[in-house]
Amino acid sequence: MEFKQALKERANQVEILLKRYMPKEEGYQKTIIEAMNYSLNAGGKRLRPILAMEACSIVGGNIEDVIPFAVAIEMIHTYSLIHDDLPALDNDDLRRGKKTNHIVFGEDMAILAGDALLNYAFEVMLSNSIDKENPNKYLKAINEIAKTSGIYGMIGGQVVDIQSENKQISKEKLDYIHNNKTAAIIIGCMRAGAIIGNATEEQLENITKYAKNIGLSFQIVDDILDIIGDESKLGKKVGSDIENQKSTYPSLIGLDESKKVAYRLIEEAKNSIKLIDSNAKFLNGLADYIIDREY
Amino acid sequence: MEFKQALKERANQVEILLKRYMPKEEGYQKTIIEAMNYSLNAGGKRLRPILAMEACSIVGGNIEDVIPFAVAIEMIHTYSLIHDDLPALDNDDLRRGKKTNHIVFGEDMAILAGDALLNYAFEVMLSNSIDKENPNKYLKAINEIAKTSGIYGMIGGQVVDIQSENKQISKEKLDYIHNNKTAAIIIGCMRAGAIIGNATEEQLENITKYAKNIGLSFQIVDDILDIIGDESKLGKKVGSDIENQKSTYPSLIGLDESKKVAYRLIEEAKNSIKLIDSNAKFLNGLADYIIDREY
Repeated sequence: MEFKQALKERANQVEILLKRYMPKEEGYQKTIIEAMNYSLNAGGKRLRPILAMEACSIVGGNIEDVIPFAVAIEMIHTYSLIHDDLPALDNDDLRRGKKTNHIVFGEDMAILAGDALLNYAFEVMLSNSIDKENPNKYLKAINEIAKTSGIYGMIGGQVVDIQSENKQISKEKLDYIHNNKTAAIIIGCMRAGAIIGNATEEQLENITKYAKNIGLSFQIVDDILDIIGDESKLGKKVGSDIENQKSTYPSLIGLDESKKVAYRLIEEAKNSIKLIDSNAKFLNGLADYIIDREY
Repeated sequence: MEFKQALKERANQVEILLKRYMPKEEGYQKTIIEAMNYSLNAGGKRLRPILAMEACSIVGGNIEDVIPFAVAIEMIHTYSLIHDDLPALDNDDLRRGKKTNHIVFGEDMAILAGDALLNYAFEVMLSNSIDKENPNKYLKAINEIAKTSGIYGMIGGQVVDIQSENKQISKEKLDYIHNNKTAAIIIGCMRAGAIIGNATEEQLENITKYAKNIGLSFQIVDDILDIIGDESKLGKKVGSDIENQKSTYPSLIGLDESKKVAYRLIEEAKNSIKLIDSNAKFLNGLADYIIDREY
């Protein structure tokens, strides 16, 4: 309960910071900015920005330096949700209980608002990196975000996920989807945060291991919860993977083995973070939370 | 004719360079990469990359340094065309005589291929800027591209253009559309090229004026050609602006006055470039070409 409170507080903090960096709803382009901000304001756990800030702070960096990056990562995450919800993709009318972007602003504006958010994320990171000490560090950090958001990261995972619908796939391919659709950008935002915080090579390596492990574990737990989760606690329907004959960790290696793997990944994540800070309370709590979320 | 030849040669050169930076069609994400490269390979005048390279070279910069940027600008231009052609936007089945991206790869892949190209443009610019001399210069150059591609540039212009369909608009709003939809990114790519070429403040200012003037003139000439252009030379239908009751330069200030403005802008562009190099053959030729394209 204590951890959940800390998580909520940090999410609130991110929402305040987000507002600081959102474009102003004015000028001829007012509508598109309203569409962008509508989805940015639509809630969520704000996990990615929180992780970017934690990664910076655990290596002793200045949290102020990472804020534009944390905000930008949430913009990238938000654009991916807007485009995911489009009729040509998941065709969802609701997300987190609110009307999706294209339902409110129309499909044309939703496509452009997604594009605009991805572009704006880079505008925010770049304009806040110019003329700072050690500009090469900022180039590296932005590059971490860029490469984990694209075809060799998030978009790659998404595409293969779409192509695997209603198909049996190998565990190797499932790992590719899990590692890229979600874990990649978690790795990207934590590495960016650590780089901005002037992490040593060893610290960066341990941050990367932590991010990789919690990212994959998160997806495996998602697969597990679709079988044994409590709909009322999860706030979404369970059983859809079996219904859609989707290949998941439980369907490929069994439920018990899946749980074992998820727990092992979390233990490894905590071990990696221990090497940076033996008392990393929040990141340890987050690792535990991922596996104990709802069951 | 001589200039047209020079333009064609440079376009061919850009296409060779593009191939060097295109992602390889392999791995699980092969399909999306095929979709990206399909549209990158679909021809065009390659004007933006040519202008980025020219801006670098006229201030005495090293052309090699600007190549990843030139290529990235074409990726951004290409993503905007893919999304423009979607059913929810212009709903075009053909572009330059070839099937549009969503016709070949489906609407879902076309949306993601556009996203991926925008993202990949930043990956190319960033990964080729890290660990170079003067990293702050590269941050500035990437930022020029980013800010002219987004809501305060290309996307902004596009949105207002969509919202102005079948409506009478003021000259001020029309100038906003013209200046943002096309001119902004021309300014962005030339400023980026000049910054990478270590332009002085004065040179940068003159490059900006040139870009701004040819960009606006280009759009005014487009408006004019829709009235007096030769369909066979243009390769597209004329008269659609009048048919759609679209506000254009000729409809707002008259045909003769529009021509005068277009010519004046081109003269001003050439005057600006003269201050950098009194014998800037290619950029002078390009300015003349814009106004004398097809009539």
